[in-house]
Amino acid sequence: MRYEELTIEGRNAVLEAFRAGKTIDRLLVLEGNKEGAMSTLLKEAKKQNAVVSFVKKERLDQLSATGKHQGVIAYAAAYEYAEVSDLLEAAKQKGEAPFLILLDGIEDPHNLGAIIRTANLAGAHGVIIPKRRAAGLTATVAKTSAGALNYTPVAKVTNLVQTMEELKKEGLWFVCAAMDGEVMYRQNLTGPIGIVIGNEGEGVSRLVREKCDFITSIPMKGEIDSLNASVAAGVLAYEIVRQRSYK
Amino acid sequence: MRYEELTIEGRNAVLEAFRAGKTIDRLLVLEGNKEGAMSTLLKEAKKQNAVVSFVKKERLDQLSATGKHQGVIAYAAAYEYAEVSDLLEAAKQKGEAPFLILLDGIEDPHNLGAIIRTANLAGAHGVIIPKRRAAGLTATVAKTSAGALNYTPVAKVTNLVQTMEELKKEGLWFVCAAMDGEVMYRQNLTGPIGIVIGNEGEGVSRLVREKCDFITSIPMKGEIDSLNASVAAGVLAYEIVRQRSYK
Repeated sequence: MRYEELTIEGRNAVLEAFRAGKTIDRLLVLEGNKEGAMSTLLKEAKKQNAVVSFVKKERLDQLSATGKHQGVIAYAAAYEYAEVSDLLEAAKQKGEAPFLILLDGIEDPHNLGAIIRTANLAGAHGVIIPKRRAAGLTATVAKTSAGALNYTPVAKVTNLVQTMEELKKEGLWFVCAAMDGEVMYRQNLTGPIGIVIGNEGEGVSRLVREKCDFITSIPMKGEIDSLNASVAAGVLAYEIVRQRSYK
Repeated sequence: MRYEELTIEGRNAVLEAFRAGKTIDRLLVLEGNKEGAMSTLLKEAKKQNAVVSFVKKERLDQLSATGKHQGVIAYAAAYEYAEVSDLLEAAKQKGEAPFLILLDGIEDPHNLGAIIRTANLAGAHGVIIPKRRAAGLTATVAKTSAGALNYTPVAKVTNLVQTMEELKKEGLWFVCAAMDGEVMYRQNLTGPIGIVIGNEGEGVSRLVREKCDFITSIPMKGEIDSLNASVAAGVLAYEIVRQRSYK
């Protein structure tokens, strides 16, 4: 398992990483700095669809480990991402109906790691995360996944809604975890399915929710609002396990 | 909600806290320092069953926020603990069979917080934790519980095995989460029950396990070993919810 934190600093080092085909989760560039070597770098970033943020010098200085960032710091994925098609292929090879977990903006790397761990043990064929406003596959995520990242593929997509549309053509149904659905125990969650878990604070976003075929709810008997996101994902994933294998 | 971190430094301040009836989770005392004012303090600590650790001066200096620890730093619970009898009383008042969650050495405060959150929403009547080698009700736990600590009582006991024996006299059954039990979906988990979740690394300890009436297992379909402890607690707690209310 590779747990190292992959922070790359300096124009040449970052350019080299791009050219070597490394997946860059995020690129921080000094604001106003778009000429010369930086312009080549930004073209590379665009080609590879990396998220670029322009920030102040103070921010870069603060984040820099080497003190020699030359106006650019890149965060590379500690693990390689899979393609959505790899996830479907994994289901096919096992002769199982696809079972995917879609995360609509999970920000806490501990939650992401715990969900990948759950995905592995619940027999899900993979996890799909969006490119923006979400934790990527950092070293913390790898560690929290307890090794699951070595087995369970994670795909990162630009637009979750569009990915759902494509997967619907492959026969998948999407079920969104929210407060106002039918209780999960009373729904049929067998068949090719993608479960959608929302952001820790805001839940599932409107556009993603509208693409879901139905809303499912975990019964809430207490006084507070919601379960921890990774616990909710676990409870829901295991209801699918029960319905698929133990009914 | 009170989220402040309650670190108390200095002999008089700590003594005052004891005398005011504050629950001290842990007391760090400079090694070799048992005379005079400290002897009074240690007597108080013993009376209230607080865990005392003797440490080197460097450790105290490092942990001290004020720089004036005078050889003693105390960590007070951010929340007050309940008594085990309060948990049974809560069940009685709701007219429900007791449903308790026992944690055999959960060390990560984020896991403890998430489990208290789950306990609240799954309708458990409380959580029981041991005094030693386990996270206490710190500010981090309070925060991670998302407010559940205001509603769900947590009792801290000296000896988990002894508490289980006492609760058995009250009619409770104990079910221990481990790898080698019958699959939970095939067991009867209704009735007055305490579920036991083990330590993150080592699982349920031998003595506690021997006191359990049966072992229950969450099915594991993947390559890795185990779920995150708070996810496992959630999956198991919700199987109890399902069996009690949705069968």
